[in-house]
Amino acid sequence: MKYPNSSKEYVRPNIGAGNRGMSLEDDINRSNRYYLTEDTAVIHKKPTPITIVKVDYPKRSAAKITEAYFKLASTTDYNGIYKGKYIDFEAKECESRTSFPFSSIHEHQIRHLKSVEKHGAIAFIILRMVYYDKDFLIKANEFIEYYDSCNRKSLPFAWVQQHGHEIRRTFTKPCDYLSTVDKVFGL
Amino acid sequence: MKYPNSSKEYVRPNIGAGNRGMSLEDDINRSNRYYLTEDTAVIHKKPTPITIVKVDYPKRSAAKITEAYFKLASTTDYNGIYKGKYIDFEAKECESRTSFPFSSIHEHQIRHLKSVEKHGAIAFIILRMVYYDKDFLIKANEFIEYYDSCNRKSLPFAWVQQHGHEIRRTFTKPCDYLSTVDKVFGL
Repeated sequence: MKYPNSSKEYVRPNIGAGNRGMSLEDDINRSNRYYLTEDTAVIHKKPTPITIVKVDYPKRSAAKITEAYFKLASTTDYNGIYKGKYIDFEAKECESRTSFPFSSIHEHQIRHLKSVEKHGAIAFIILRMVYYDKDFLIKANEFIEYYDSCNRKSLPFAWVQQHGHEIRRTFTKPCDYLSTVDKVFGL
Repeated sequence: MKYPNSSKEYVRPNIGAGNRGMSLEDDINRSNRYYLTEDTAVIHKKPTPITIVKVDYPKRSAAKITEAYFKLASTTDYNGIYKGKYIDFEAKECESRTSFPFSSIHEHQIRHLKSVEKHGAIAFIILRMVYYDKDFLIKANEFIEYYDSCNRKSLPFAWVQQHGHEIRRTFTKPCDYLSTVDKVFGL
């Protein structure tokens, strides 16, 4: 994405959410709120990591950050607890019809998934294939095995169909990944 | 803390760290890095939540946030996995010699601790009593029980000494709270 050299209102990127009109992040956040309300699980998105450089402290009003930069996340975006288990996952949208480019997921996020999995986490990736309007849960260990052993630069959609598990969408839980977790991880 | 009406370099507040010269946050972050390196646990501090209002996209350089505000955290600051268990805690420094004011911890953070504890988390508070130069681990359930039943506005230091568990400090782990977790939660 290229932007002109200008200052403008910040609108959260909401790229290609198929027929839904909502981003995967919005759908997961809504589902998480529902899980929290039902008391099924406590899972939150982590805030966007930024480096704060300058802050204004105006009299009698809230501190205003006037210079800050986006920072690379050192972990995945989501974690929490479900049925006594530590849950950890990354969520990605994929525009391509044929494959998910590995460049979309950072090396240290993969290292993080490996690490938490080794410590006993329920770790996975949620992949939205925008063109097909489908969400898949991919177990972190299967993803990593393929990633480490293949000589490709992307994950073919055929692989996703074979190894991924489709996530259902309900009215209250537009990305009901915990029902998929139950099946896939036998919780 | 009052600040003049001016713009200035942002320096992370590093309030009263006794003889150490380091804040509790720094000490916990250093300990967490060590736990990660040793492969003992994967525990991270969550980024500070902010609301982004305006972003500059200068040509050929990194996006610059030019207007943003601090947001109240809806969860605690730290979570992760240790010995297969979900770990969740909040860390607080206390300047007073006599008690820890409840106003320093937000209602929704207490609600969050209650909630994760109910789901099977190892949940606690790390309290640094700056004057005594000591760190204590307080189990979330004991803290909450006292908080809900007392009619006080603060946690007396005498209570902390009786119910808290002192955390040792080592050279590599300036706040070695996981060795306290082992003892207190029998891990």
